[in-house]
Amino acid sequence: MATQRKTVLIVFAHQSPRSFNAAVRDVAVHTLQGQGCQVIVSDLYAMDFRAVATAKDIAGELQNPEYFKYNEETLVAWREGRLSEDITAEQRKVQEADLIIFQFPMYWFSMPAILKGWIDRVFTQGFAFSLQKMYSNGVFKDKKALLSFTTGAPESMFLPDGINGDINITLWPIQNGVLNFCGFQVLPPQIFWAPATSPTSVRKVMLEAWQTRLGALWEETPLSFAKMHLFDMSLQGGFRLRPEVKEQHQGDTYGITTGQHLGKPLLPNNQIRAAPTI
Amino acid sequence: MATQRKTVLIVFAHQSPRSFNAAVRDVAVHTLQGQGCQVIVSDLYAMDFRAVATAKDIAGELQNPEYFKYNEETLVAWREGRLSEDITAEQRKVQEADLIIFQFPMYWFSMPAILKGWIDRVFTQGFAFSLQKMYSNGVFKDKKALLSFTTGAPESMFLPDGINGDINITLWPIQNGVLNFCGFQVLPPQIFWAPATSPTSVRKVMLEAWQTRLGALWEETPLSFAKMHLFDMSLQGGFRLRPEVKEQHQGDTYGITTGQHLGKPLLPNNQIRAAPTI
Ligand SMILES: Cc1cc2nc3c(=O)[nH]c(=O)nc-3n(C[C@H](O)[C@H](O)[C@H](O)COP(=O)(O)OP(=O)(O)OC[C@H]3O[C@@H](n4cnc5c(N)ncnc54)[C@H](O)[C@@H]3O)c2cc1C
Ligand SMILES: Cc1cc2nc3c(=O)[nH]c(=O)nc-3n(C[C@H](O)[C@H](O)[C@H](O)COP(=O)(O)OP(=O)(O)OC[C@H]3O[C@@H](n4cnc5c(N)ncnc54)[C@H](O)[C@@H]3O)c2cc1C
Repeated sequence: MATQRKTVLIVFAHQSPRSFNAAVRDVAVHTLQGQGCQVIVSDLYAMDFRAVATAKDIAGELQNPEYFKYNEETLVAWREGRLSEDITAEQRKVQEADLIIFQFPMYWFSMPAILKGWIDRVFTQGFAFSLQKMYSNGVFKDKKALLSFTTGAPESMFLPDGINGDINITLWPIQNGVLNFCGFQVLPPQIFWAPATSPTSVRKVMLEAWQTRLGALWEETPLSFAKMHLFDMSLQGGFRLRPEVKEQHQGDTYGITTGQHLGKPLLPNNQIRAAPTI
Repeated sequence: MATQRKTVLIVFAHQSPRSFNAAVRDVAVHTLQGQGCQVIVSDLYAMDFRAVATAKDIAGELQNPEYFKYNEETLVAWREGRLSEDITAEQRKVQEADLIIFQFPMYWFSMPAILKGWIDRVFTQGFAFSLQKMYSNGVFKDKKALLSFTTGAPESMFLPDGINGDINITLWPIQNGVLNFCGFQVLPPQIFWAPATSPTSVRKVMLEAWQTRLGALWEETPLSFAKMHLFDMSLQGGFRLRPEVKEQHQGDTYGITTGQHLGKPLLPNNQIRAAPTI
């Protein structure tokens, strides 16, 4: 149990307060409050949260109104405290949080657009990362983050030999590309497989298991990602694993998982270079 | 060159008409029109396209207004022709298209929320898939689709030993989970690596290479995904590779790529079962 009062932000992305996702959120709110945590919920649909990254996200003058560049404009606006009110409010919550729980139903092997929009708009350059501060040197390295989501598919479809492929591959863009990239300690995902086609008793057990997990959440070991010092983080080095690291790990099986479907690579390496490599 | 008049839908997701993405779109429009194709562009920001999946997507009465379930409500609304005007208009374009090009800047290892919202809302159950019609038996199996996108990162960061990991893994949720799932013949992605930090001459070459590729696009071999008949598509069989298929491919290296970072799996298999497996 944590001795210091912790703050948890739950970013909640379901339309209905009667949904299973809402029940999962409520278990988290009550269990964490019971531990003495401060719990903040951003209920995105209820807030009518804007998902789309536009010039409205910047208050005051744009650097270049004729040629709008979202990343450049938001970087300057963040530095000058001119991001829109809704973004600033979310950024304050993120700053306060020791843990962020993303609670959502899986939409198209990913998160619903409203939640993707929260990430696109809230995790602006400067606030959430910089060219110096990313990955294991990321801005949020003292914070934890966790994906908690429901699916329509049963677990077997998301096994390495299941037709959807390994769930870890499907989660890579979010867990590595968003959370690990920003430095978060990424806790293992909490997956509620197919609640809508499960019997009530199974759903009850799922919620109880979540409650139990929350009781020991602060002591969990985060997922492991290759640390930044293993890579040559220079343009010349190409941000690739250092030769001596590769040598040291020769013979290890590579990969985030044992595999995805059959042996053949998805596509020959040269095919992804339709644009010329200079 | 195609003898029959083809229709191409470009779903375009950039805020600025002066962006490199807009230049890439324009090359596609002109080149394809030059081939005699009909080209339709959905310019999502210009259309102020709604990204968020809500009850507004259904015209008329909801089945269950007290407990809103997006998938169930949109399935019924689609059957009865009661989806909102904006969704219906996009569905008509999809139906007409022989090829869909998704043109976007990479946002957080994925697509911008406005484009994710297009997928969440337009590819409704019934229209884009059903329990019978998915993957290699998918609704859109006579259509092609292609991701065309720009990045901030150089290509080396997205190599298997680059710090972002193999681009094929990052694209899996979209290329397999959205496009292959709906039956599309998925053409290899067109990736414009780091245009903003490339010299003008390199950007010119990129656009020329795209134009050249478009000239022979209709003859390209799509990416290969494991076909549905290789899986036991029953609840009992778990939608997993058939035992005889696995046996036949024993000894093959598994995986969509040769690997991702170092040997260790992202997480021990049991860790993703935080919820009990029943
Ligand atoms: C656009 C879209 C894309 C999708 N893409 C995917 C995809 O790529 N992959 C995939 O697997 N799925 C996908 N789905 C399916 C989606 O993930 C599921 O519909 C969703 O995860 C189910 O969660 P829910 O909270 O909406 O469940 P609900 O339907 O709200 O609830 C499920 C059941 O739980 C019951 N329940 C509610 N509260 C409680 C409680 N307190 N205790 C016990 N039971 C309770 C409800 O009564 C209901 O019977 C998609 C759906 C949509 C709309
Ligand atoms: C929220 C967010 C998240 C992001 N996440 C990621 C990520 O996960 N991974 C990643 O790699 N990147 C990421 N990026 C960076 C983003 O992908 C790039 O900024 C974007 O892809 C650049 O494309 P653009 O069209 O906006 O380029 P622009 O900045 O519009 O253009 C680049 C250059 O091309 C020039 N140009 C325009 N037209 C032409 C022409 N006709 N001929 C020649 N040159 C021309 C322009 O003058 C400019 O110099 C993210 C950005 C944002 C805002």
